[in-house]
Amino acid sequence: QDSDTTDTTKQDELSLITETPEEGFQVAVQLARKGVTTTQPDKDVLFMLRDVYSKDPDALIASSHVVAVHYQTVAAANNYWRE
Amino acid sequence: QDSDTTDTTKQDELSLITETPEEGFQVAVQLARKGVTTTQPDKDVLFMLRDVYSKDPDALIASSHVVAVHYQTVAAANNYWRE
Amino acid sequence: QDSDTTDTTKQDELSLITETPEEGFQVAVQLARKGVTTTQPDKDVLFMLRDVYSKDPDALIASSHVVAVHYQTVAAANNYWRE
Amino acid sequence: QDSDTTDTTKQDELSLITETPEEGFQVAVQLARKGVTTTQPDKDVLFMLRDVYSKDPDALIASSHVVAVHYQTVAAANNYWRE
Amino acid sequence: QDSDTTDTTKQDELSLITETPEEGFQVAVQLARKGVTTTQPDKDVLFMLRDVYSKDPDALIASSHVVAVHYQTVAAANNYWRE
Amino acid sequence: QDSDTTDTTKQDELSLITETPEEGFQVAVQLARKGVTTTQPDKDVLFMLRDVYSKDPDALIASSHVVAVHYQTVAAANNYWRE
Repeated sequence: QDSDTTDTTKQDELSLITETPEEGFQVAVQLARKGVTTTQPDKDVLFMLRDVYSKDPDALIASSHVVAVHYQTVAAANNYWRE
Repeated sequence: QDSDTTDTTKQDELSLITETPEEGFQVAVQLARKGVTTTQPDKDVLFMLRDVYSKDPDALIASSHVVAVHYQTVAAANNYWRE
Repeated sequence: QDSDTTDTTKQDELSLITETPEEGFQVAVQLARKGVTTTQPDKDVLFMLRDVYSKDPDALIASSHVVAVHYQTVAAANNYWRE
Repeated sequence: QDSDTTDTTKQDELSLITETPEEGFQVAVQLARKGVTTTQPDKDVLFMLRDVYSKDPDALIASSHVVAVHYQTVAAANNYWRE
Repeated sequence: QDSDTTDTTKQDELSLITETPEEGFQVAVQLARKGVTTTQPDKDVLFMLRDVYSKDPDALIASSHVVAVHYQTVAAANNYWRE
Repeated sequence: QDSDTTDTTKQDELSLITETPEEGFQVAVQLARKGVTTTQPDKDVLFMLRDVYSKDPDALIASSHVVAVHYQTVAAANNYWRE
């Protein structure tokens, strides 16, 4: 709510409400990653794994799938940004 | 909103609201691809991967699945284009 | 809407609204296939792939899953054909 | 609607509306199978495949997943059999 | 409805309505298993398979996924046990 | 409801209602794990398995997927924490 702290708190404070469908998509991506880091918090392992799966078609499609599920949630939260 | 820029902004400005179920399906496809490019933004790698998975039945079905999830979102956003 | 062109336009014009749950299921199947053909439009490759996965239990179940997701959408669009 | 033909038409005429959650589950199972038979209509191939995947844990879980998705649809159609 | 038969009929009569989120979760687990036993009713085969997949990470996650889908249904049926 | 027992009862008493989207995400993670422990309650086996799948990209994405499904449920339960 305090506009001049928006940028710094973006990563700390999770919110499903966004201005645009595009921003909502970024929240969905953030949620998908959060689901991975919760299980594997070690950044070194994570970067190594991302390097592997970013070249694996199946993993890329599976990641896109998780984003799609979260995007349903975010879009519903924002009443699909109608109007 | 500015009608003579619609075509050029189509890729820039994401919207879930469409005129027809067919257009909505194209948005779902676009969202599924956006989920992949967010994880792997390198176009060369992406084209190579698409070449591989477009001949792999499992990957094709998995892609179709992601589109289906997004289509649920888009269809709900448009009240299923009833009437 | 023009009843004597219904049959010929069925494949061209996508609609989620159907008379019966059975017809709705056919739309869900059509949407699942549309998701595949969008990624791989080459008919020859598609027929070859369908020949492979129609004998693969995992692929058959995965296909049935995609149909199920689309059927949720179609059923909701039709208010579940209540009454 | 014609009550004395209910049993014989059960397989022909699909309906999402059921008396109980148990019957609804059977409809979900029926829909999951319908999704498979639409892609592979050959009964001999189907029986052979079912023999294989009924002993494969992954395929059993995947089948149960498809039933779960359809059960969401059927349960919503019946307002979750509340009251 | 007949309170002194509740315990004995629990397994026979499926209901999505529960007192608490915890009980609802148990119904979701029950539904996920029901989806498996419908495809493979042989108890001996089932026990053997469960022994295998209870030590397989992928199968455990896949099982948890099916429970999650059913939990959506059960939670919605109970209006998320709000209040 | 008894505020000074909140912390100790958190693990015992499951609730979908949370103050913030962040807390809701933790409930989704808890539900995903609960789905795994229900099938494999042996803590030793579970720790061994988690060690394996926390280094497997596919398993990490699959885990994130299950969290996403539960997050849909939790977010809906909280009316998406709107306002």
